Amino acid sequence: MKQRILAEETLEKIGKKVILAGWVNTVRNHGGIIFVDLRDKSGLVQVVFGGKLAKEAKKLRPEWVIKIEGLVKKRPEKLINPDLPTGTIEVEAQSLTILSQSEELPFDLGKKKLNVNISTLLDYRPLSLRHPTQQAIFKVQETIAETFRETLKKEGFTEIFPPTIVPSVTEGGAQVFKIDYFDKKAFLAQSPQLYKQIMVGVFEKVFCLAHAYRAEPSVTTRHLTEYVGLDVEMGFIESFNDLMELAEKLIRNIFAAINQKNQKELKMFKATTPLLPKGEIPKMKLRQAQEIIFERTGKDCRQEPDLQPEDEKEICQYAKEKFNSELVFITHYPTKKRPFYTYPDPEDPEYTHSFDLLGRGMEWITGGRRINDYQMLVENIKKWGNKPEVFETYLQAFRYGMPPEGGFCLGLERITMNVLGLKNIREASLFPRDMKRVDIIL
Amino acid sequence: MKQRILAEETLEKIGKKVILAGWVNTVRNHGGIIFVDLRDKSGLVQVVFGGKLAKEAKKLRPEWVIKIEGLVKKRPEKLINPDLPTGTIEVEAQSLTILSQSEELPFDLGKKKLNVNISTLLDYRPLSLRHPTQQAIFKVQETIAETFRETLKKEGFTEIFPPTIVPSVTEGGAQVFKIDYFDKKAFLAQSPQLYKQIMVGVFEKVFCLAHAYRAEPSVTTRHLTEYVGLDVEMGFIESFNDLMELAEKLIRNIFAAINQKNQKELKMFKATTPLLPKGEIPKMKLRQAQEIIFERTGKDCRQEPDLQPEDEKEICQYAKEKFNSELVFITHYPTKKRPFYTYPDPEDPEYTHSFDLLGRGMEWITGGRRINDYQMLVENIKKWGNKPEVFETYLQAFRYGMPPEGGFCLGLERITMNVLGLKNIREASLFPRDMKRVDIIL
Repeated sequence: MKQRILAEETLEKIGKKVILAGWVNTVRNHGGIIFVDLRDKSGLVQVVFGGKLAKEAKKLRPEWVIKIEGLVKKRPEKLINPDLPTGTIEVEAQSLTILSQSEELPFDLGKKKLNVNISTLLDYRPLSLRHPTQQAIFKVQETIAETFRETLKKEGFTEIFPPTIVPSVTEGGAQVFKIDYFDKKAFLAQSPQLYKQIMVGVFEKVFCLAHAYRAEPSVTTRHLTEYVGLDVEMGFIESFNDLMELAEKLIRNIFAAINQKNQKELKMFKATTPLLPKGEIPKMKLRQAQEIIFERTGKDCRQEPDLQPEDEKEICQYAKEKFNSELVFITHYPTKKRPFYTYPDPEDPEYTHSFDLLGRGMEWITGGRRINDYQMLVENIKKWGNKPEVFETYLQAFRYGMPPEGGFCLGLERITMNVLGLKNIREASLFPRDMKRVDIIL
Repeated sequence: MKQRILAEETLEKIGKKVILAGWVNTVRNHGGIIFVDLRDKSGLVQVVFGGKLAKEAKKLRPEWVIKIEGLVKKRPEKLINPDLPTGTIEVEAQSLTILSQSEELPFDLGKKKLNVNISTLLDYRPLSLRHPTQQAIFKVQETIAETFRETLKKEGFTEIFPPTIVPSVTEGGAQVFKIDYFDKKAFLAQSPQLYKQIMVGVFEKVFCLAHAYRAEPSVTTRHLTEYVGLDVEMGFIESFNDLMELAEKLIRNIFAAINQKNQKELKMFKATTPLLPKGEIPKMKLRQAQEIIFERTGKDCRQEPDLQPEDEKEICQYAKEKFNSELVFITHYPTKKRPFYTYPDPEDPEYTHSFDLLGRGMEWITGGRRINDYQMLVENIKKWGNKPEVFETYLQAFRYGMPPEGGFCLGLERITMNVLGLKNIREASLFPRDMKRVDIIL
């Protein structure tokens, strides 16, 4: 529809004839005059049907798709709707075409808030996603993905498209999905880890937005079986500080872009991007973090190999109080808790040059320097109880010369969830997959 | 390595001290002076090791990773290498650090052409990808993906991230991969088709770069079991011409971007982007195309529901001769040969408002208008031998109001292959998957 304009564009068309098309958000009958809030991808605009058209417009029901021609008029002062970006105008309809009808809705889409529980939200995903608050989540998500790409391209990174069907289980045995691959078996990649590392040997600095799959047999509010990883890997690093520096730059750029492009969406959720300090995001070793937690709470996790969810919350709280930062890097996780390719700290090989970035009490990013020495990798694969043959393709990259390198991964849904303060990660995935649900309950 | 510069940047540093790092592409010993072609992501530069350093540099072997400090010097006129972008300079090494060693290579990476057969190319993928001609393929691929996104964002499209694990077989029974999904079965998406259509109900115009999976039990030079689809779907269309118009715009923008950014890569393959007419890309109905083929070759395919590979070649040849276009739209495929959601031509419902874009004898894009009427969709699902219950989530989008809409899909590897004139689609996939190979031969 070439001459169609969007709802938000009507503001610049006062006194002009326009063509609009979209969904009936709400219909109100005021003494024979029909008021329709028309919704399109830009938002809402009020369309008024009087005279003969009112008769036809009376039939309209929520989610019918219509096209109208009409005249854009300023509203009288007292009829201005300050809640609506187009609330200063309305469109007087001159024609009405019905493009598609709708059955009666299972819930009300016309209210400012979508008051449905998570099951209904997901049972009616094609419909619930149409609500402005749900659209908002994925507009913020798009900004995150876009800023990720733009930032890395400016830094000289190359985008790659690694495969998701893989020949063997790599990072852990139990949590992987098996595929019937003709008369053989293959698996769904737990991450593009091995491929992005291989590609450092080709393009030095690479990134990808890759689907990753985890067959974790549990249903939580922060795990999905299929998610989108924003993956980064870079060669010729001096130390793993280079990686944290880049991760911080990414996060700062993402927050800045959200604040620039998504004010409307942030407001819907009464959300603000997390507080960041003027200087660098604070960093502390895992053992230091555990000491602090012990001092603050009396809970002794100082021998644990990782932080528990409540520890993550506590240390984030500490970082906020002490450094004015809602994000904090935790570094030097124990060697045994990290994958075989993690680079040990030369000063204390019990620990690694690895890091997590925690935000608002949850893990956002995980990364670290990798072992780039072929022999050391082969030995570690054995130590971790695997067979080097299984990693033949991966090991080639190191057998034939690999610079010092490392990388990290951000979970797209995790960041979306945490920026907007969503309670369940499923809200941050268009069609979330978990142990029980793949669109429908299996 | 903060002070490191890239090979191509040395041209601007004549007389200056620089730090370089990369892979040893070739080593030559000329009477005790060692000449190394150092390769990094920008290309090659010659580094000269004399004096004491020559002794150390003698040990260097192809694919060792090194870091050097050195002085950039103009080469004497007679030593200029016109084949090398940095051929007017060389770097006199002042220090050498070995970052990583390499085993002996299974083939020569230092030649201008990579002379290996397809098996070797894929058996040693991490290594073969390092050759400049192989890197070139994926630089062109990146341009295609990038231009696709940029064009659509400018047109008001929203990027979405649809899932790849799906609850049921959708577009055809046999060609789908089964997943062990906990104690249930799920499948790998043959395309994001149903999800992008659902999302028209939300964002009107959407696109995605989505992995798609086909369990076709055959090994050809133009099929992969996992590929990247550049998917587009848009609502509020007037007719399927809107879709072809957008597809043409995308193709023209992609060619323009390749010509602007990838001259070096095109030259390596002696390739040019396909010829396009000044006016629109020619369009013809399938039946017209078949008539033309019959007239030109005597081969009577006029009753066939589709074009065979040799027909596609013939009609592309015709379009080139007649319209000066290496691309041609074929429209109006028979209703029975297209998926259940394809919109029938109201003037002749035996045929559909569908199209393929053929280029250089091969299918590049397939698309069409979709049925947006709920009842008609339900009936068609039954006619095609499926159960509407299986499509419950998809059908919701239409039950609750969907504008006239349609879309199309470009295969990322297909376009890369055809632009560069590659003989096998595997060359256009970083880690190609087919019936027999998933990195290694299964």
